[in-house]
Amino acid sequence: MKDKYDEMWEKLDLDISAHEALLTVLGQFYNDIYLTQQGRLNGMEYLDFVMSEVHGLRIKELQDAKAEGRKVIGTFCVFVPEELILATNAVCVGLCAGAETGFDLAERYLPRNTCPLIKSFFGFHLARLCPYMSSCDMVVGETTCDGKKKAYEIFGKLKPTYVMEVPQTKSPDAMALFRSEIVRFKQHLERLTGVTITPEKLAQSIKIVNRRRKALQRLNELRRATPAPISGRDALLINQIAFYDDPLRFAENIEKLCDELSERVNNGQGIVPEGTKRVLISGCPMAIPNWKLPYVVESSGAVIVGEESCIGYRNTRDLVREDGETLDELLDALTERYMKIDCACFTPNEERLDHIVTLARELKVDGVIHYALQFCQPYSIEATRVEERLAEEDIPFLRIETDYSMEDTGALKTRVEAFIETLD
Amino acid sequence: MKDKYDEMWEKLDLDISAHEALLTVLGQFYNDIYLTQQGRLNGMEYLDFVMSEVHGLRIKELQDAKAEGRKVIGTFCVFVPEELILATNAVCVGLCAGAETGFDLAERYLPRNTCPLIKSFFGFHLARLCPYMSSCDMVVGETTCDGKKKAYEIFGKLKPTYVMEVPQTKSPDAMALFRSEIVRFKQHLERLTGVTITPEKLAQSIKIVNRRRKALQRLNELRRATPAPISGRDALLINQIAFYDDPLRFAENIEKLCDELSERVNNGQGIVPEGTKRVLISGCPMAIPNWKLPYVVESSGAVIVGEESCIGYRNTRDLVREDGETLDELLDALTERYMKIDCACFTPNEERLDHIVTLARELKVDGVIHYALQFCQPYSIEATRVEERLAEEDIPFLRIETDYSMEDTGALKTRVEAFIETLD
Ligand code: SF4
Ligand code: SF4
Ligand code: SF4
Ligand code: SF4
Repeated sequence: MKDKYDEMWEKLDLDISAHEALLTVLGQFYNDIYLTQQGRLNGMEYLDFVMSEVHGLRIKELQDAKAEGRKVIGTFCVFVPEELILATNAVCVGLCAGAETGFDLAERYLPRNTCPLIKSFFGFHLARLCPYMSSCDMVVGETTCDGKKKAYEIFGKLKPTYVMEVPQTKSPDAMALFRSEIVRFKQHLERLTGVTITPEKLAQSIKIVNRRRKALQRLNELRRATPAPISGRDALLINQIAFYDDPLRFAENIEKLCDELSERVNNGQGIVPEGTKRVLISGCPMAIPNWKLPYVVESSGAVIVGEESCIGYRNTRDLVREDGETLDELLDALTERYMKIDCACFTPNEERLDHIVTLARELKVDGVIHYALQFCQPYSIEATRVEERLAEEDIPFLRIETDYSMEDTGALKTRVEAFIETLD
Repeated sequence: MKDKYDEMWEKLDLDISAHEALLTVLGQFYNDIYLTQQGRLNGMEYLDFVMSEVHGLRIKELQDAKAEGRKVIGTFCVFVPEELILATNAVCVGLCAGAETGFDLAERYLPRNTCPLIKSFFGFHLARLCPYMSSCDMVVGETTCDGKKKAYEIFGKLKPTYVMEVPQTKSPDAMALFRSEIVRFKQHLERLTGVTITPEKLAQSIKIVNRRRKALQRLNELRRATPAPISGRDALLINQIAFYDDPLRFAENIEKLCDELSERVNNGQGIVPEGTKRVLISGCPMAIPNWKLPYVVESSGAVIVGEESCIGYRNTRDLVREDGETLDELLDALTERYMKIDCACFTPNEERLDHIVTLARELKVDGVIHYALQFCQPYSIEATRVEERLAEEDIPFLRIETDYSMEDTGALKTRVEAFIETLD
C-alpha cells in the first residue's frame, strides 16, 4: 500500500513509519489467523479485500466524501443512532480499537486500570496511527460506562467530541430522557453538517441500516446449522467490518456470501467436522484486530457459532420499525429500537440473561464462554449473574477476563482446552 | 461491650467470635490514630463515646426503633434523600464500609478488580460482621458508578435492595428523570413503612437534615482559621459519624463542639503549630475505619483542613430550600439540592473542579491531595482533569490511588512526605 497512500496518510498526519510497521504486523497477524483457514467461503474474498485496504481504499473514500462536503462521524458504541448520521449525508465509522497500541501514551491521561478498548482508541489517536480517527470531523461518545464517560471529557480536549446520555434503566422517564437525547443529537448533527433531517431522509437511512442488519441476521441464522458452515473468526470479522464499510455495499456482499453459505448448509457441508463442539461467546465487544480468544477457541478444536456481543447480535438483533411517516414517529421508532439493547450498562438487565439462554438453545451450543475485557466493570460483574443463570439451565460456562496483550495466550489456551474437554 | 450486647448481636445473626475480634482490632486502631492525639477538643469526647458504642448503644437504639414499628433503611451514597426516609419515621444509616473485611467472601460474587468500598460492604455482610446491615429492613442503592450499579443486582439476592437511578448529566430531562425517581422512592417508602409522607412531615425532616448540615458547615468554616484548630482526623471522624448517629442529637453535639472550637479560634489556638502545611483532601469517600491517608498525612507534619468528598463537603455544602409548602414544592426543592452534588459520576463535572479551587483558596491550603480508591474509575479518571486545573491555578497537587490494605502505608508515607517537603 505504501506508495499509493503515503501522501494521503501524511495529510492525515499519521506517523508514517510507525504506521507502516503497524500494517506489516497486522498483515502477518491476519495471515496467520485468517488466511491459513481451510475451506473458507469464496465470499470471504470481499472481506479479505476490505481488510487489506482498511487503511487504504476505505480511507480514500472518506477523503473523497469530505471533498464533496460530507462529514465523517466516528462512534464507539452501538447506542449512537447511525440512522441520524446517514440522514445528514455524513459517513459513520466505528472507532473501537482492538490492539495494544500507544498504551504508554494513553496512560499519560488515563489510569492503568482502564479497559483496553478505551486505552486503545486513545493510544491509536495519540500515536497518530488511526486514519479513521484523523478523518473524523467529530466523534460521538455516550455515557454507557464509567471508563468511557469520564475518558471522553479528556478526549474532548484532543478532538471534537459530542456526548449522548444513555440512561441506566428502561423506565418510562429514562426512555423519555433517551428520546430527548436523540433529538438533541439530531439538532447537533444538523448544525454540524448544515443538512436538515427530513422524514424522507431519515426513513431512507433507517431502511439502509436495517438492510445491513437483515443481512447479518441471515448470516447468524445460517450459523444454526450443524456442522457449522462458517468459522467464528470469519463471522466475527464480518461483524467487525460492518462498522467500517459502506452499509449498502457491505449488505450486498454479505447477502451474496449468505447465498453461498445457504448452499453449503443445504449440502450439509461444514467448515468443521460433524460433532465439533459448538461455543457461544458472550460479553464485551471484540474490535479489530482483537481475534485472540476466537483464535484460541477455534485452535482448540471447537467452533464459535455466535457472538452475544455488540460486535455480534447486540448490533443486529433488533430492526427499527419502518412504518413511521412523520419525524416524530421515526424518532419514536429509533428510541424504541435503541432502548432494546441489552448492554450491561443497564440495571437490571435480565433481557440479556434471557437472550443468552435463547441463543444457547437456538444455536445448539455445548457451552458458553463469557468474555470480559479487563477492568470492564459492567460485564465482569454481570458475568456472575450469567454464570448463575446458565447453571440453572445446565449450560456449561467458562469465564474469561483478559486484555489485548498476547502474554496470556498460553494460559488462556490451557483453560479453554480444559473447558472444551469437559463438554463431552 | 461483650456481656452487655452479646444477646443482641446473636439475634442479629452476627458471627460473635469474629465480631469480638473485629471490635478489638478496631479499638486498638482507634486508640493509636485518635486517642494519642494531643490537645484535642473536649467536644470530641462525644465522638469517642459514639465510636466506642458504634456496634453497641446505637444498634440497641435501632432495635428499639424497630420494636416500635419503625423501619431501618441503609444507604451507600449521598444521593439518596434521607429527608424522605425520616419523613416516614424510619431511621437512616450509612452503610459504606472502610475495612478489608470478608474480601475473600466478597470475591466469590465480585471481580477482584472492584473498588474496596463495594467489596467491603459485601464482605461485612457476608462475614456477618455488620450489625447495621443486619438491622436494615431495606437498603437503597443508586446507579452512580458501574461497580455499585452492577453489584446491587447481586446484593439484591442477599438483602432487600431498592435502586434509584441517578442520571449522568444535569440536563433538564435528566433532572426530570431524577425528580421522577424521587417520587418513585417516596412511594416505595410509603408502601414499606405504611406511613404517608405529608408536606408537614417532609418539611420537618428537611429542617432536621439541614440542621445537621449547618452544624457541619460551621465546623468547616472554623477550619479556615490559621493555625488549624482541629485535626483532619477528628474532622473526618465527625463527618463519618454523621452517617450513623441520630441527626438531631448529633447536630446538638457538633454545635457545642463548634462553640469550643470558636473559642480556640478566637484565642488563636491551634491543634498544630503556626506554619504547619495545610492540605485539602479531594476525591472518594473515606468510610469508617478508613483513616489511613489522614493518618499518613498528619503524621508527616501536615494538617488536613478540608475534605472535598462525600464524607465531607459533598454531603454538607448544599441545603434544601425550606420555603416549600406543598408536597410538589418540597420535592422540587429536594431535586434541586441533590442535583447540585458534584460527584464524578456526572459528565461534565466542571462544578467539582471549580469547587476544589474555591476551597483551596478559602482554606488557604498549601496543596491538594487527590484520593481515589483503587478501581474507582469516575474519580481516578477525573483526577487527570483536577490535576490540569490545579496546575493552571498553580496549586500543588499529589495523586494517590490506594485500597484498604495497610501494605502500602510505608510507600504512601514516603510519597506524602516528599510532597509536603515541596510545599515550602
Ligand atoms: S457493550 Fe454497551 S457500551 Fe459497549 S459498545 Fe456495546 S452497548 Fe456500547
Ligand atoms: S468494554 Fe466495558 S469498560 Fe470497556 S468501553 Fe466497553 S463497557 Fe466500557
Ligand atoms: S462519591 Fe458519588 S457515588 Fe460515591 S457516595 Fe459520593 S455521590 Fe455517591
Ligand atoms: S469509590 Fe468510586 S467505584 Fe467505589 S463505590 Fe464510590 S464511586 Fe463507585
